[in-house]
Amino acid sequence: MTTPSRRELANAIRFLAADAVEAAKSGHPGMPMGMADIAEVLWNDYLSHSPKNPKWFNRDRFVLSNGHGSMLQYALLHLAGYDLPLDELKKFRQLHSLTAGHPEAHHTPGVETTTGPLGQGFANAVGFALAEKLLAQRFNRPEFEIVDHRTWVFMGDGCLMEGISHEAASLAGTWRLGKLVAFWDDNGISIDGKVEGWFTDDTAARFEAYGWQVIRNVDGHDAREIKTAIDTALKAGDRPTLICCRTTIGFGSPNKAGKESSHGAPLGKDEIALMREQLGWAHGPFEIPAGIQDGWRAINAGIVREENWNRLYDAYAAQFPAEAAELVRRSHGELPAGFSDAADAYVQRMQEEGHTIATRKASQLAIETYAPLLPEMVGGSADLAHSNLTLWKASKSVAGADRDANYVFYGVREFAMTAISNGLALHGGFLPFDATFLVFSDYARNAVRMSALIPAHAIHVYTHDSIGLGEDGPTHQPVEHLASLRHIPNNDVWRPCDAVETAVAWRAAIERRDGPSCLVFSRQNLQHQQRDAQQLADVARGGYVLLDPPEATFEVILIATGSEVELAMQAARALDQQGTRVRVVSMPSTDVFDRQPPEWREGVLPSWCRRRIAIEAATADFWRKYVGLDGAVIGMDGFGASGPANQLFEHFGFGVERIVETAKALG
Amino acid sequence: MTTPSRRELANAIRFLAADAVEAAKSGHPGMPMGMADIAEVLWNDYLSHSPKNPKWFNRDRFVLSNGHGSMLQYALLHLAGYDLPLDELKKFRQLHSLTAGHPEAHHTPGVETTTGPLGQGFANAVGFALAEKLLAQRFNRPEFEIVDHRTWVFMGDGCLMEGISHEAASLAGTWRLGKLVAFWDDNGISIDGKVEGWFTDDTAARFEAYGWQVIRNVDGHDAREIKTAIDTALKAGDRPTLICCRTTIGFGSPNKAGKESSHGAPLGKDEIALMREQLGWAHGPFEIPAGIQDGWRAINAGIVREENWNRLYDAYAAQFPAEAAELVRRSHGELPAGFSDAADAYVQRMQEEGHTIATRKASQLAIETYAPLLPEMVGGSADLAHSNLTLWKASKSVAGADRDANYVFYGVREFAMTAISNGLALHGGFLPFDATFLVFSDYARNAVRMSALIPAHAIHVYTHDSIGLGEDGPTHQPVEHLASLRHIPNNDVWRPCDAVETAVAWRAAIERRDGPSCLVFSRQNLQHQQRDAQQLADVARGGYVLLDPPEATFEVILIATGSEVELAMQAARALDQQGTRVRVVSMPSTDVFDRQPPEWREGVLPSWCRRRIAIEAATADFWRKYVGLDGAVIGMDGFGASGPANQLFEHFGFGVERIVETAKALG
Repeated sequence: MTTPSRRELANAIRFLAADAVEAAKSGHPGMPMGMADIAEVLWNDYLSHSPKNPKWFNRDRFVLSNGHGSMLQYALLHLAGYDLPLDELKKFRQLHSLTAGHPEAHHTPGVETTTGPLGQGFANAVGFALAEKLLAQRFNRPEFEIVDHRTWVFMGDGCLMEGISHEAASLAGTWRLGKLVAFWDDNGISIDGKVEGWFTDDTAARFEAYGWQVIRNVDGHDAREIKTAIDTALKAGDRPTLICCRTTIGFGSPNKAGKESSHGAPLGKDEIALMREQLGWAHGPFEIPAGIQDGWRAINAGIVREENWNRLYDAYAAQFPAEAAELVRRSHGELPAGFSDAADAYVQRMQEEGHTIATRKASQLAIETYAPLLPEMVGGSADLAHSNLTLWKASKSVAGADRDANYVFYGVREFAMTAISNGLALHGGFLPFDATFLVFSDYARNAVRMSALIPAHAIHVYTHDSIGLGEDGPTHQPVEHLASLRHIPNNDVWRPCDAVETAVAWRAAIERRDGPSCLVFSRQNLQHQQRDAQQLADVARGGYVLLDPPEATFEVILIATGSEVELAMQAARALDQQGTRVRVVSMPSTDVFDRQPPEWREGVLPSWCRRRIAIEAATADFWRKYVGLDGAVIGMDGFGASGPANQLFEHFGFGVERIVETAKALG
Repeated sequence: MTTPSRRELANAIRFLAADAVEAAKSGHPGMPMGMADIAEVLWNDYLSHSPKNPKWFNRDRFVLSNGHGSMLQYALLHLAGYDLPLDELKKFRQLHSLTAGHPEAHHTPGVETTTGPLGQGFANAVGFALAEKLLAQRFNRPEFEIVDHRTWVFMGDGCLMEGISHEAASLAGTWRLGKLVAFWDDNGISIDGKVEGWFTDDTAARFEAYGWQVIRNVDGHDAREIKTAIDTALKAGDRPTLICCRTTIGFGSPNKAGKESSHGAPLGKDEIALMREQLGWAHGPFEIPAGIQDGWRAINAGIVREENWNRLYDAYAAQFPAEAAELVRRSHGELPAGFSDAADAYVQRMQEEGHTIATRKASQLAIETYAPLLPEMVGGSADLAHSNLTLWKASKSVAGADRDANYVFYGVREFAMTAISNGLALHGGFLPFDATFLVFSDYARNAVRMSALIPAHAIHVYTHDSIGLGEDGPTHQPVEHLASLRHIPNNDVWRPCDAVETAVAWRAAIERRDGPSCLVFSRQNLQHQQRDAQQLADVARGGYVLLDPPEATFEVILIATGSEVELAMQAARALDQQGTRVRVVSMPSTDVFDRQPPEWREGVLPSWCRRRIAIEAATADFWRKYVGLDGAVIGMDGFGASGPANQLFEHFGFGVERIVETAKALG
């Protein structure tokens, strides 16, 4: 058999995509058919990976930001020799298959990140490239380029229309991420049709304005032009590269190529038959001839790459054993041996020192304590460093070339910031955190969701957590945000009531490996709470008894979080003086509390006690899950207002008297 | 007294801002001090407005997108003669004052939109400019430029870093909004310090890439340069203009000018004293000398402008009475006289015809019915027209010059889309709707919040509302979104169960004037439900009894929304056969239901019945507010999966059998 042409290799993708979408009766054939030639050149001539070990640490990262074209990625993974058999491609988009509608990390071998929500894959890729730059700065030594890989990203018009593309591209340019290469699938078609009615940007000029190298006018169906473009990208120095590829969506389909009808629906049996004729493809659905299969296999080359790297790593480890050990530890996402004890000691110290400070300040103290133990910690804020209090003594900007660079000045870019955190976490070697005001978690909302869905071990720090921020007014005062973040599955939200709970919350977020945490902090000072040793240990349960009446029983339970805990404590004392015995439950994390065994939850909130009042300066409705129909909630039922914080708390009914009255009314 | 210099006029703003922030002990003096000279030229030489009538329909719209500099706007409004007395400026940022921390529409006369969340004011302004263009196209006639105003927007580095600036600027360029002029406050400083570490875009080149006219290198403290730039902007033809103004933040403060320390905190008494010396300002706090006050007054000029326009309007009304009447009606936000009856008839017809269709399809039918009655309806989708089903027969793209233009191809730009809706609604003359998949409401999240906070009469259409969307998988399947949207205060969420409830939901969203509605629709077909006349009328209550047992009493209440209503009905029949008598409550809008009188709510969900089961293919926790601790919720407790919809519903436990078992277990 003759060696297959590049076009024939690419056509294997086209037919796998068209036939799999046909079998699934849904999906997006147009993009894989349009980008097949680009993918063929990239994967066969450039991509440095090892199909037999999708987790090889120094692999190139490939991101499909236009994730609806998932069959492109599945076809590539299968053809290159990843553990994704043809049978899985035949089950495209079926329940329990490895080939979900959109690519999912931690689900399909070789998929680096979960994509589909447009623009976020691109921002994840910026995170991958930043991770590579930072690891290279820290670990590489002369003649030991132990960290040295590229990040390649495919993106469509949709990714480029999304605002996050602006934020992420701007940061990539500023950070000079020269090993990031993006391919723009410039096919002139989006779901609504020809993009000229709604997408008239000069995208090339836009990316040049971000400091990118831009390669214009590449014929995305001409392998030589694609190769020349990639070769130019490799010489970009410290500028990221955008390669603008003119392509035909649905290339190869006689009647649907170049049309939106090929975008998001099966081509139809007849059209696929015509396509077989047009492309001279004599093989049946899911049949890949051996010659073409051979042309794609990347297993052996990958093994050689990995062996070479292993040799380099062994030599490096011999010469730099500490660095090598740290790299291995970090790449496995393991915490240093001493962390747990150090955290215990710190939590204990906070309890003893009894600071009455803002929890955002307590958060900074926690970072100051934990970060020196965790060189993998890299964090930053969306232009609110001095409000979020995210800078610590050892902070060094990642924009520079410092070996210990660990701080990210994200600018006012909450969405890209959060998606970049996800990228840093997925890359490995980092424990990222990001920060903004709680209300502006909205701007990053879908990236927070993606942290939880992927899942990515990222920490989202949100300060100024209620009307307690005061004068900035309702645009800046979160109301619905606590509940809304808690509703995201697999997302742990913490709202600590003092410096002690803050220390525990940070620790939990650091130790949690299977998902994100949102740490929610006050602007204003919060009173320190007394705890005995058992209570101190119980904070980590997410909800625990902070106060019980001296006598054995109580009649009323007050449940509170954050700034409202001290109010609940005052109300409990007032009620006690009036003969009503009260339990106070501090509930810094409802998510963590809900995961405790039933006995624990029953112990804290016994079923027999229905006189329950939840107090939180946020949407009241959320708390009905703990107080039911018989209890009461003291919360917000509308937006806040501009004014001094203490006046606002009074104005919106957060006072001892109201709690006392409410408790009595429940009697 | 000599005529004050332009600088002296501008200094009045500087001192009002510095002194008000000082009095409030919080706020942002730097921006007003930096943009004072620009504002002085714009307001005194160009702005076409009428301080005595802030609602004059043909006024120029002025938007402060960098809303933290609110004192700039309050100073301008006060000095120009709006009803904002000095006493209110002295109460800057105090509870119940007219001078909130950030500018709030519907609260302070002359404030066009609520700003603070960065970038959104700019996108609102694009909405204002689009509104002007569309109204001019529809209503102007030769020699009757009855609609003819500009939209001016101030924006800072923060607005430009935000992704929404990309989306909004791209649309403004595509739509050729030549009457939109943006001033970039290029002061090189953001909260974290000198922006060069995180903001290195060539912003001028970026905006040229969007098709804007860009005027570079304007000295923002030189009135002549500012005038020249604005004159050039006025000649931009159909290109929007960006004027890049180099300014010094905190201009006039000897020690804090040009530094981030002037950005977000009081300058301090001593520094203000030094500033008085430096700028030669001999007047005390809140003292504006008569000459300077006179130099600012815009009342009489405004009255003349308005009178001239009234004369033009009268002549227009004489010649084009129908158009004039329509313009008045629309500018007042009133519905046409016949709308209510037509809606009644349509709802009735839907009940009689009994379609079993997807509610997104039912939504399209509703648009098809209501839109021809409402020329003010202008809507669109973020590149999902054929999925959201937002196109109707009379749709005409706003990108063109058509008199009846009413459809917006927003491209994949959910955030700007929603903020532009807010702008269209605030401008007056329009009832905007926008659309995307429910999961991608996340991308627009803070703009939805702003719809509710402002409030703006906007309608957000969200289709593909659950795991029912099937194969696209968890990235596209909303779980937490229904609850999260319901938690936004003043936001009405509707999730109808069939074409009838869809017709009612659309009608409610149209008739509601004091806030937004989110209309949430299924991808898949939903069964038509039987209703008698009373039930049909009750749909508008948000929650009503869809089924009661033939006998007088019931033992169990099933509460459901959307696609789960037909499941509840099946379960009710199954339970009935097994001797358990069931009420089914359809709850298309919990928000509307919660506003009903207590008797209504008690009638639907009587307190005595605690055997309640809520069924919704979304976050379960939300429903505890209706079922309490004794009831049960059949919902989602994690993310969805990729697969055919019917398999997913089964996989995630949405089946008759489980409901039956749950009901019995509650017994």
